[in-house]
Amino acid sequence: MKSKFKLVEGAIVAPKGFQAAGVFCDIKRLGTGKGSNKGNKRDLALIVSSTPATVAGMFTTNQVCAAPVKVCVERVKCGQAQAVVVNSGNANACTGKQGMADAREMVTFAERALLLPKGSALVGSTGRIGVTMPMDNIRAGIVEAAVQLGSTIDHANQATEAIMTSDTRPKQIAVEFKLGGKTVRIGGMCKGAGMIQPGMSATGARPMAFPAGLHATMLCFITTDAAIGAKPLQAALREAVAHSFNRITVDGDMSTNDTVLVLANGAAGNKKIEPKAGNAEFAIFSAALKHVCLELAKMIVRDGEGVHRVVTVRVDGAKSIVDADAAARSVANSPLVKTSWHGGDPNWGRIIDAIGYSAAKVVEEKIDIGYSAPGSKKILWSLKRGQPTKATFKELCAAVAPKEFDLHIRLNLGKADAVMYAADLTEEYVDFNKGDVGDPASLGG
Amino acid sequence: MKSKFKLVEGAIVAPKGFQAAGVFCDIKRLGTGKGSNKGNKRDLALIVSSTPATVAGMFTTNQVCAAPVKVCVERVKCGQAQAVVVNSGNANACTGKQGMADAREMVTFAERALLLPKGSALVGSTGRIGVTMPMDNIRAGIVEAAVQLGSTIDHANQATEAIMTSDTRPKQIAVEFKLGGKTVRIGGMCKGAGMIQPGMSATGARPMAFPAGLHATMLCFITTDAAIGAKPLQAALREAVAHSFNRITVDGDMSTNDTVLVLANGAAGNKKIEPKAGNAEFAIFSAALKHVCLELAKMIVRDGEGVHRVVTVRVDGAKSIVDADAAARSVANSPLVKTSWHGGDPNWGRIIDAIGYSAAKVVEEKIDIGYSAPGSKKILWSLKRGQPTKATFKELCAAVAPKEFDLHIRLNLGKADAVMYAADLTEEYVDFNKGDVGDPASLGG
Repeated sequence: MKSKFKLVEGAIVAPKGFQAAGVFCDIKRLGTGKGSNKGNKRDLALIVSSTPATVAGMFTTNQVCAAPVKVCVERVKCGQAQAVVVNSGNANACTGKQGMADAREMVTFAERALLLPKGSALVGSTGRIGVTMPMDNIRAGIVEAAVQLGSTIDHANQATEAIMTSDTRPKQIAVEFKLGGKTVRIGGMCKGAGMIQPGMSATGARPMAFPAGLHATMLCFITTDAAIGAKPLQAALREAVAHSFNRITVDGDMSTNDTVLVLANGAAGNKKIEPKAGNAEFAIFSAALKHVCLELAKMIVRDGEGVHRVVTVRVDGAKSIVDADAAARSVANSPLVKTSWHGGDPNWGRIIDAIGYSAAKVVEEKIDIGYSAPGSKKILWSLKRGQPTKATFKELCAAVAPKEFDLHIRLNLGKADAVMYAADLTEEYVDFNKGDVGDPASLGG
Repeated sequence: MKSKFKLVEGAIVAPKGFQAAGVFCDIKRLGTGKGSNKGNKRDLALIVSSTPATVAGMFTTNQVCAAPVKVCVERVKCGQAQAVVVNSGNANACTGKQGMADAREMVTFAERALLLPKGSALVGSTGRIGVTMPMDNIRAGIVEAAVQLGSTIDHANQATEAIMTSDTRPKQIAVEFKLGGKTVRIGGMCKGAGMIQPGMSATGARPMAFPAGLHATMLCFITTDAAIGAKPLQAALREAVAHSFNRITVDGDMSTNDTVLVLANGAAGNKKIEPKAGNAEFAIFSAALKHVCLELAKMIVRDGEGVHRVVTVRVDGAKSIVDADAAARSVANSPLVKTSWHGGDPNWGRIIDAIGYSAAKVVEEKIDIGYSAPGSKKILWSLKRGQPTKATFKELCAAVAPKEFDLHIRLNLGKADAVMYAADLTEEYVDFNKGDVGDPASLGG
């Protein structure tokens, strides 16, 4: 599908008025006294707006929630921010009172280093759980990053590298579009890999409509030079996350640290976006933000730990959205379905089994299962109304052979639908996650 | 723990008045025209009581439910049966009207072959999904098995072998105990391996209290010479299954075919057991049945596909049983927790993460996590009130090194508890289940 948003270079510094930096301050090794940080990979990033920006955020609904998430939930409420400090190598989760004190010191120290007003910095962390932050290194890193801030693609690349953990490649994007005659840009960077099935809300509280048992650390930081108020920005972000990050799964495990933050500094000079019904600018901005979030979310699935194949699970014809979501998640997280995807095996028996044990109301004799190329409507059906079609085994194998394909499930009971962007389950995932037992640092994350 | 029930030889033919047989009739190969059945492994079993027996059953709550399950749910209602015919190699699931006709023919053909009254035979199937039954072979197998029926340990062993699929070893047991001066025996056989997280009820309907998304084909057939009515037998079985088969998970996938059947023929000559409150005989019989079910259930986990380690997850201090169950299942099915068990990695960060995203109400600062030898109360705590203890990494590694250990989780919020018998997740599981794509028979199960 061709996007209506023009891709541009620069990622998080593509929008006007943003600077970034990514530095190495040895967080992983010094947090535990052991382990290694091969090649001194950057581990601390700063993103700074030249002027106060409106802010919106979405956070993990895990009841075990990291200190930086708690600090952000508190601070995003005021609707304004100007900087984000992010580290990898240590999640600052399950670190008790010391962890909260450290997260608070990270934001106040960043504010002082950047000469910003109190309350204007936010914080994100990813890495090991249960290890206190090496604050001497963090402070040195913040000072170093503040010195190195800049607006070139290199600065964006270095910031993106600094938030990576088991990610094998950086994930970033920037788009440009017109809003009331003005050129507006949205840039973003994110990280993922394992512990990926985010279920985020604005407050960390789990909404009633949320399927129970949602479950990665994924971090995403978005910048835009659009002029928009905090409330419409939060509304646009909630909708964008609901259709992107909250629809992905690598392993079904939800992290303690999942965070998405957007800073909007208004430097594009557009007329401030109002969230009134039918407001064209709000609709365009929201669509662009959703596009950025979805592209970043898909990058996370493609680069998930040990992932070989990415499957878009499309359920339709459910009695309700909750049912559609339950059926899609059940299939997307079934170990037997995920291993069959890895094997290139068009095994509909496992799929209908996972649909049947989901919390969704289904009727075996009404279920259709088929395959298509990503986004295509040319579906090869393997099952119609609960019974095998005449599609040959060879044809079905060809449909599930590509690195990416769509799995279509029609329940034929109602009109609700849901999509999940899912990964296969491979020997590499198991091998990677069985851990390095020689390293006591593996106790936590 | 030493059992108060004496182990005896003979498995399902240990109780008086039962005969069994297991034969080869080439169900797997002939069901598809392809594939192989190495070494002509037996694939059809008969269990027959010499007199009419009371019967009770528990069945999968998967909404996609195999034809043999539907036939059993119908027939168990009348409370009497005398024979069970079971096949491996074909699940007779998702086979439509033909499947229902075939399942009905299996019971009626068995009744004729055994000269039993109409309505007295039951049926179980396991194997591929979506392939119609090779009825010529089934009929030949039933005739052959009827000829070979007998009451030696060899007959029991052959029947047990006939129901195995990916199982690497037979699973069977028999116990003996006294009931009002009479010697009573209970025998049982089962199969499992993959698609294992049963959630069974007496009617296949999901009770309200059932956690959504329960998920093997596991088949279990139990014989007893106790005299007991159908209602108390069903009550005892429901309780036994709730504390055994419904508490195990290999991969979190619930099968379309899960079935437990008990036949009680009264040949022991005990006074018919009444289910009145405080009835000592009912309590003893129930405890023995629960013991048999739990031992068989644990054999299924130990022999799960690719399983290296078995972990008993014990949650206590939850606000409700539903909460305790949700927390235990979340940990027991988390890919990150299961891979850490495989690696011998005492990673509490992943455990507390899975507790936090479960549907259970939890408070991070109140959670304790520890390890013990199976059944031992000598717990090594790794986390107390959300914070790491002084237990050393070496001590914790030693606690998770054995092939079996207990994981203790205290939520410290209430008095409810729950146990799950869980397996690790290994490269072998993935390798086994990624399938044999050269074989079109892999389309289904």
